[in-house]
Amino acid sequence: MLQKIYLDHSATTPVDEKVLESMTPYFTEKFGNASSMHGFGQDAIGGVDKAREQVAKFLNCNLGEIIFTSGATEADNLAIKGVIRAVHKRLDVKPHIIISLLEHEAILQPCAELERDGVAEVTYVKPQANGVIDAEDVKKAIRENTVLVSIMYVNSEVGSIQPIGKIGKIIAEINEQKLIEWKKEKKPNQGKPPIRIYFHTDAVQAVNFLTCNVKRLHVDLFSLSGHKIYGPKGVGLLYKNKEVPLIAQQVGGHHENNFRSGTLNVPSIVGLGQAIENLTEETGVQNNEKISKLRDLLVEGVMKNIKEVILNTDRENAVPSHAHFSFLGVEGESILIGLDLEGVAVSTGSACASGSLKPSHVLLAMGIKKEIAHNSIRFTLGKFTTREEILRVIEILPPVIERLRRMAPKL
Amino acid sequence: MLQKIYLDHSATTPVDEKVLESMTPYFTEKFGNASSMHGFGQDAIGGVDKAREQVAKFLNCNLGEIIFTSGATEADNLAIKGVIRAVHKRLDVKPHIIISLLEHEAILQPCAELERDGVAEVTYVKPQANGVIDAEDVKKAIRENTVLVSIMYVNSEVGSIQPIGKIGKIIAEINEQKLIEWKKEKKPNQGKPPIRIYFHTDAVQAVNFLTCNVKRLHVDLFSLSGHKIYGPKGVGLLYKNKEVPLIAQQVGGHHENNFRSGTLNVPSIVGLGQAIENLTEETGVQNNEKISKLRDLLVEGVMKNIKEVILNTDRENAVPSHAHFSFLGVEGESILIGLDLEGVAVSTGSACASGSLKPSHVLLAMGIKKEIAHNSIRFTLGKFTTREEILRVIEILPPVIERLRRMAPKL
Repeated sequence: MLQKIYLDHSATTPVDEKVLESMTPYFTEKFGNASSMHGFGQDAIGGVDKAREQVAKFLNCNLGEIIFTSGATEADNLAIKGVIRAVHKRLDVKPHIIISLLEHEAILQPCAELERDGVAEVTYVKPQANGVIDAEDVKKAIRENTVLVSIMYVNSEVGSIQPIGKIGKIIAEINEQKLIEWKKEKKPNQGKPPIRIYFHTDAVQAVNFLTCNVKRLHVDLFSLSGHKIYGPKGVGLLYKNKEVPLIAQQVGGHHENNFRSGTLNVPSIVGLGQAIENLTEETGVQNNEKISKLRDLLVEGVMKNIKEVILNTDRENAVPSHAHFSFLGVEGESILIGLDLEGVAVSTGSACASGSLKPSHVLLAMGIKKEIAHNSIRFTLGKFTTREEILRVIEILPPVIERLRRMAPKL
Repeated sequence: MLQKIYLDHSATTPVDEKVLESMTPYFTEKFGNASSMHGFGQDAIGGVDKAREQVAKFLNCNLGEIIFTSGATEADNLAIKGVIRAVHKRLDVKPHIIISLLEHEAILQPCAELERDGVAEVTYVKPQANGVIDAEDVKKAIRENTVLVSIMYVNSEVGSIQPIGKIGKIIAEINEQKLIEWKKEKKPNQGKPPIRIYFHTDAVQAVNFLTCNVKRLHVDLFSLSGHKIYGPKGVGLLYKNKEVPLIAQQVGGHHENNFRSGTLNVPSIVGLGQAIENLTEETGVQNNEKISKLRDLLVEGVMKNIKEVILNTDRENAVPSHAHFSFLGVEGESILIGLDLEGVAVSTGSACASGSLKPSHVLLAMGIKKEIAHNSIRFTLGKFTTREEILRVIEILPPVIERLRRMAPKL
């Protein structure tokens, strides 16, 4: 049987054995509803409490600042719509949001919805050619009515790391400066305080590799997902600094401090906690180095053995998992299918947008031409990826590309 | 060790072994993202497709009419807010919603939010003393601008069954009548068609026991939850007739026909499908009869051995699982704790509202006095409940009540 090779860790990861072990008792033995007062309920809430502590330690935040959700899409929707809906009635002006052109649909769509509803206006910051946002460009986009800035920590397609700590610091300084000026002008408690800017990051693709200390990053809101970090699907969380106003999107039984109603998904929350603890224990550094070396092996092998290929991942400014290429003259989708037939799983970009014929908005924003964007394939390595797998891919890929190029219509 | 007895199946159920077995491969082997084009993705979507077929068969609906969600709270929010937000801009009048005073917070809160936002007006229909809504009362509440009726199928506290089929038929007839009259008055395609009334039911507590054939029930929208039917937590669904206008609440990667974005929670969806297939296979009737007999054994035992107790469940009009009592002069919470110490898990009502000092809004709506509402305990039996467990509860309960009554302050 064909030994399959999975190089699509940015789309999802297998659940770690230790994570699955931590979850199992909560399906059949400790199956209680975490809101129940009896022993079964106490067992369940015990699991949730432990997970909350594991997360709080990792993020360096308080237990009450964590809102468990059904995933990062929900966390992003809650952050964007929840903050804007909370502030827009208090303000005399229309709230202004700044996001980047690199964002995931889970950020783009809520912003588009708020714009359509006339509730907010949105500015889109363009990345540099290497897929990195310049913090100064974010600063320049800030207006008097800016309420929310949301910049993803790591881009899911090319893997570029955004300067979250730097942007966070700029925003914190502006907030402080505004407050100082307001206090100078007016006596405190007189008139409205200045509009504070809240800073959100969708950190889904960063958690495996980068620091998630929310204090050090100066972020007010932070989304992450279980299934990208060897945890289960269907669970994620939003960190929300206690000062940030937020209106719940999913209302009902008043769970999660009234910010997110619905029976707590105990087994998955327990699994998320364990996945996060694994990151701490396994000392990410070790994984990072291993993955980084294998990624470099892949990049060198591809660049050496195949002509007319562009590497879109700027390795100096990207997480170790990503290698994103454009193979000129070949449709990315054809390469994906060709590799799949050989048992190698890769992606053309974001899994969520696959099947769509539109070129990636991320690549276009980086200044890559439409035709070349269509030639793209993303390899994303994980902690279980081996040297043998990478060597095999380097062997399989050139003939696949060659065959497809021979079949492609001559221009 | 104390053998624990779980009589809180209305709050949540243990995951059935067959369900857990069906889920397990999707954590570690078939772990792909269901949106991915490669083999791992195809394995994942295969599991989701099978679950969708299992559900469609059970509900008697099309595959495209099922929207998987993170649970019933999300499904209820989506139904209520999604329909109203979809129609309110088209209408010249403010949309009108009819719900019952029996509803769960997951219905009450979204309606309250829409009222606060000035987007809809809400009428609350009062149940009869036995906790059953009279279909005629719903009919009387219908106005020219009524757009949505949402009545739960079975009340979670006392277990009363609502006449969903009857209400559905009334609404269908009114819709048809309105259309006939409009066609008489106007030529078709001329002017706006009349406002159609959509009918939703939160069926969370019904699925184990009653028919869920959406055609036979004449419902347009139908919510259910995995963890109440021996499936996993963190998953549920909304059935939506293809004619019903709906705006997504959670937006992003365009999953679920664009009605609910977010990476599909494959293992849990697979488990939900299996839980629903179990209901079909195990021929509910058999479970119902067994549970019904045990419930009657409990009721007779309690009524015989304890004085001054009121049975709030009208067994003629309730699901077989429920036995809801008021033990005069004793706080429900004290009984719960007393029984928990003996290893018996029960509830004072809805787990979601537990910890709250407010008397149950359901019992008050049934005309039960506040003091008596506070004396309440709900027993809910499940398919694994045994005769021995019930006999043991009948033995344990009287001394617990007696002791608490001795301790209670004399009035």
